[in-house]
Amino acid sequence: MTTWGESHGAAVGAVIDGCPPNIELAGEDIQAELDRRRPGAVPLTSQRGEEDRVEILSGVFEGKTTGTPISLLIRNRDVDSASYEALRDVFRPGHGDLTYFRKYGIRDHRGGGRAAGRETAARVAAGAVARKVIARQGIEVLGFTEEIGGVAIETFSPEEIRKNDLLCPDAVAAGKMREKLDTARMEGDSLGGIVEVRVKGCPPGLGEPVFDKVDAELARSLMSIGTVKGVEIGAGFRAARMKGSECNDPIGPEGFRTNHAGGVLAGISTGAEIVIRAACKPIPSIRLEQETIDVHGKPRKISVSGRHDICVIPRIIPVCEAMVCLVLADQLLRQRAIYEARIPGGKGE
Amino acid sequence: MTTWGESHGAAVGAVIDGCPPNIELAGEDIQAELDRRRPGAVPLTSQRGEEDRVEILSGVFEGKTTGTPISLLIRNRDVDSASYEALRDVFRPGHGDLTYFRKYGIRDHRGGGRAAGRETAARVAAGAVARKVIARQGIEVLGFTEEIGGVAIETFSPEEIRKNDLLCPDAVAAGKMREKLDTARMEGDSLGGIVEVRVKGCPPGLGEPVFDKVDAELARSLMSIGTVKGVEIGAGFRAARMKGSECNDPIGPEGFRTNHAGGVLAGISTGAEIVIRAACKPIPSIRLEQETIDVHGKPRKISVSGRHDICVIPRIIPVCEAMVCLVLADQLLRQRAIYEARIPGGKGE
Amino acid sequence: MTTWGESHGAAVGAVIDGCPPNIELAGEDIQAELDRRRPGAVPLTSQRGEEDRVEILSGVFEGKTTGTPISLLIRNRDVDSASYEALRDVFRPGHGDLTYFRKYGIRDHRGGGRAAGRETAARVAAGAVARKVIARQGIEVLGFTEEIGGVAIETFSPEEIRKNDLLCPDAVAAGKMREKLDTARMEGDSLGGIVEVRVKGCPPGLGEPVFDKVDAELARSLMSIGTVKGVEIGAGFRAARMKGSECNDPIGPEGFRTNHAGGVLAGISTGAEIVIRAACKPIPSIRLEQETIDVHGKPRKISVSGRHDICVIPRIIPVCEAMVCLVLADQLLRQRAIYEARIPGGKGE
Amino acid sequence: MTTWGESHGAAVGAVIDGCPPNIELAGEDIQAELDRRRPGAVPLTSQRGEEDRVEILSGVFEGKTTGTPISLLIRNRDVDSASYEALRDVFRPGHGDLTYFRKYGIRDHRGGGRAAGRETAARVAAGAVARKVIARQGIEVLGFTEEIGGVAIETFSPEEIRKNDLLCPDAVAAGKMREKLDTARMEGDSLGGIVEVRVKGCPPGLGEPVFDKVDAELARSLMSIGTVKGVEIGAGFRAARMKGSECNDPIGPEGFRTNHAGGVLAGISTGAEIVIRAACKPIPSIRLEQETIDVHGKPRKISVSGRHDICVIPRIIPVCEAMVCLVLADQLLRQRAIYEARIPGGKGE
Repeated sequence: MTTWGESHGAAVGAVIDGCPPNIELAGEDIQAELDRRRPGAVPLTSQRGEEDRVEILSGVFEGKTTGTPISLLIRNRDVDSASYEALRDVFRPGHGDLTYFRKYGIRDHRGGGRAAGRETAARVAAGAVARKVIARQGIEVLGFTEEIGGVAIETFSPEEIRKNDLLCPDAVAAGKMREKLDTARMEGDSLGGIVEVRVKGCPPGLGEPVFDKVDAELARSLMSIGTVKGVEIGAGFRAARMKGSECNDPIGPEGFRTNHAGGVLAGISTGAEIVIRAACKPIPSIRLEQETIDVHGKPRKISVSGRHDICVIPRIIPVCEAMVCLVLADQLLRQRAIYEARIPGGKGE
Repeated sequence: MTTWGESHGAAVGAVIDGCPPNIELAGEDIQAELDRRRPGAVPLTSQRGEEDRVEILSGVFEGKTTGTPISLLIRNRDVDSASYEALRDVFRPGHGDLTYFRKYGIRDHRGGGRAAGRETAARVAAGAVARKVIARQGIEVLGFTEEIGGVAIETFSPEEIRKNDLLCPDAVAAGKMREKLDTARMEGDSLGGIVEVRVKGCPPGLGEPVFDKVDAELARSLMSIGTVKGVEIGAGFRAARMKGSECNDPIGPEGFRTNHAGGVLAGISTGAEIVIRAACKPIPSIRLEQETIDVHGKPRKISVSGRHDICVIPRIIPVCEAMVCLVLADQLLRQRAIYEARIPGGKGE
Repeated sequence: MTTWGESHGAAVGAVIDGCPPNIELAGEDIQAELDRRRPGAVPLTSQRGEEDRVEILSGVFEGKTTGTPISLLIRNRDVDSASYEALRDVFRPGHGDLTYFRKYGIRDHRGGGRAAGRETAARVAAGAVARKVIARQGIEVLGFTEEIGGVAIETFSPEEIRKNDLLCPDAVAAGKMREKLDTARMEGDSLGGIVEVRVKGCPPGLGEPVFDKVDAELARSLMSIGTVKGVEIGAGFRAARMKGSECNDPIGPEGFRTNHAGGVLAGISTGAEIVIRAACKPIPSIRLEQETIDVHGKPRKISVSGRHDICVIPRIIPVCEAMVCLVLADQLLRQRAIYEARIPGGKGE
Repeated sequence: MTTWGESHGAAVGAVIDGCPPNIELAGEDIQAELDRRRPGAVPLTSQRGEEDRVEILSGVFEGKTTGTPISLLIRNRDVDSASYEALRDVFRPGHGDLTYFRKYGIRDHRGGGRAAGRETAARVAAGAVARKVIARQGIEVLGFTEEIGGVAIETFSPEEIRKNDLLCPDAVAAGKMREKLDTARMEGDSLGGIVEVRVKGCPPGLGEPVFDKVDAELARSLMSIGTVKGVEIGAGFRAARMKGSECNDPIGPEGFRTNHAGGVLAGISTGAEIVIRAACKPIPSIRLEQETIDVHGKPRKISVSGRHDICVIPRIIPVCEAMVCLVLADQLLRQRAIYEARIPGGKGE
């Protein structure tokens, strides 16, 4: 999978290569996912009015994938760079515009270019295709809000998740999160949080033995989302404080009795639920005044006044889900390639 | 870079492709790193007496790299599979032998095969080569013990690290960690902990914009170590609880004033110190009795009596450093490829 | 580089990743190359009236590349699938529709789908970007007609090539080729031929030692054009009939005295002109009646009546050039990555 | 697959990743292939006495592949660099030592280092593993001598091939080839030739639609053998002189009636026999005096007196076969990954 596109260029998109043929795929499948990521899908998020209409340009014929590359295009309809003029020569703290400038020696001041969250729309679109691939294997991927502004969930009611504008499985905690968000908005500040993604129905055996372990690929894919600063699987950082006798999951004839491993042992899926968490930093663009420098290295004060979200959660949740779907689809196809080989009676054997 | 080899097979090794030519490289450079990983290098770790002599089979001529693939070989000298006979038909909780069996349909009961820690010797050897590559750019990579058994460091004295058998920069904390390890050994249990790796001298601009972000690659490389269950960069999971005004690093003419970003913004190195942490689970092989099943799915009790470490730290530290060196060497070469293009006066311009 | 798109779908396109920043790139640079590939650019080729307007969707800001992925889009304006209705259930000899059907179990009867020449428009567009990259190094790539319908060139006048509708460096031979083409058109048949591509200014040292040799990559890239059935470099198949004393190029202080090697030794560029030839089969869609089967395996007769070219040459020449440009750009960047390492005085050394 | 090693270093080897588990593999399987490549296996080839004992270091347990990387090692036993002393500062025409020097800025005068034919032993060893993988699908790969020194075969008797020291299917032509070789040896010269490889039992559908077409990968893999200067498939260069009505293979209910396509259409295998030819240049190391330069750029005369072959054929034949086996194994696994998806009733569907 390849993505391309800048937040304030003409469009963003993705090309998916190697998708199996004969999978039913319609624009609506992808659109539904994109709509979840859209600003305004939930209150408290920015009002940029991006419409995010996806167009399938290739790889699908009469409603089914053909096996050839699938190209997805999402036009950027609301390219109002005017509000970015004030940022033409100043770097925003916590943003990638300084590092991009140092990497490429090119300054694109408009909305962070490639680094902006806009690129994630292409990931969500591609993830929708991957979700169709793994669904045929019975794999389901579900993300939700675990924590915002220091408020963590205390109960887990899956049916709450979709009811709730914060995609939070604990209605009480969601109320407290909303208060925290209101306060931050009034203060001109922003908040971070934690997303959890759970995978049901993943068969055992996914993951390659050394560098392409399934947890390594999941960590990479989530950490490749700009806002994510930490990733853990199963007991994660808590495992570092456990004893072996606590952390090891006892095995019974019916399966693992606990799931501190988070569904992955030695980099290979165990068949248990995969549980993975991503720590998201607060959005760097805030109204509060901050110290920075301009392109000439002179000290400056900056207060970012654009229409920005207070918290990347819950909008980032479909992005996290998409990345997990893409990793699992890839690993599933790799496992199919070698698994077939040990089924007796195959063609030519 | 490719590694190969099983813990109880003939040997383990690595092949490094794409190493620049004319870098001085001797067996001792690699041996020195391997000796740090060796059991018995520190007390409290297992006494298997592996000797880990590395042999450079190709890619070096008259003490310098030639640019062609470098092949490194480490024979397994102490292949005493007898103590594994008891495990022939039983799966160890927390181990990869069950997932390997489900993935490949093959049972190699000897010491976990590919999944065992032994494979990491090949990583350390390859990392020693990568360290030479990045050293020419002035990049230094240093890992240390941040936490064992719930005891975290409270002070940071770099000079303590090498003095100290636990590679711990806080001598007082090290004392407490040793007590925890003694207790766990007596109980037949094991402990987890946290490793931190710091990178000094990394130029800004390393990292590719989308999936191959430098933090994404670092997360993948550390999570690909079997024992690691979580990875965070800079403020990491703490960032999820910060406000934007706290988490953003103010920029002054002299550079960033804080380093919550951990040296990476939008997936590209900022030029500040890179700070990354890996959470290691407790070693799964313990003497305490545990519940499990055998290859026929029958319930069994297991008590693993081999010569096993109590804690993967500090032996895992050179492995973590090696993975960081490998990622940075790769990203450095990628950046060189495109950076050259914008230097005026190059050949043919 | 990735391409996508079917001949009779919505569009074709390419995504170029890893292009260095700060290279001047305008839509016209790409359009100029596309216009050379366009049907009707030369007489004797098909009159489908494709317009091939390229759109740069990302990766370029204020006329320069930014280093981020460049997405190119070419809409398919003339999608008249009606003339393909007759082919709905019958396979065309010499075409990929049968193999695609067997591979994917999906039948897209419209113009051969992904296998059609239309996909090469995306390659030409991407090649135009690569040409800009290598031009900064002083590398020039020129393709021309060497042979059509068995008529080979006997003289080589570079200035003839662009004058001449067949891109043939021998005006007399071009006349005979035109006669052959006229005859074939009247007979309802088609012709094959040979394209030669020459590369001037390629520095020595491009190419990786084993599988990614520069000649191996060139062979792969040209053979990946559907119509190409053979590739040779330098003396090529003639070298098989030479003695060592004839074939070896004597070396003088001024360079190689002959160029049977075609600018490549041991897979690495020598600094001499790179000379490579591609054998193109005749276009399979012909008016003459042929034997085939339908999707039910029943014998059928077929006569393809669409607007088809008589010969893939000269339209394929810009495609061959594009593939050569893409390989050289890639190898140039790889060499830059390691070459820097041996320049003394680099940063940090 | 990765190979490593220099002709006069300690060893050569290969690492094969992604090999399916549960395939029977013994050292003898690999040794048998290596013995065919060995000098002295046939008269007229060099007498260096390389013994080429392969060692399987990993990836095989109790005679079966485990799915983890397979590491193969072949020690270089006869490292007599003395005869190369004369070449310390002079470049050999037709050899890679000049291009290697220019690429890496390092001079390894001993036998051409990585560029030497010795590296091909590792390919043959790896190819032996690939051959086992494709054999389970019923695929057979057979190479033979088609032409040496301008003498081409006129008849094709498969049973002749193994009888015959030149692996030539035409006993009469083989006699004439031998005379040519005798003459060349007496003259201190060398000869080129053509190898043909045929693949029986390849299922339709192998090959990816764009750049990884099966013929593109085959061309790359054969051209990556140092001695090969041209590759063609099916009618190859002859197709350039054919009309469409001649070149198209008529399709009947029983299959293709001719095979000008050589078993590949649009880059995807048709199910017919794959036929591919590689043009090999004469061996560059000859006794006859040649003009060259030394490392200081001064003109020199050179006469290479080592124990060199007269013709790379037939020793190169197992190498060509190995490369074909490796490409097909890879493509077969890729096709398995997507093919499964359209089989109804699969797990989870």
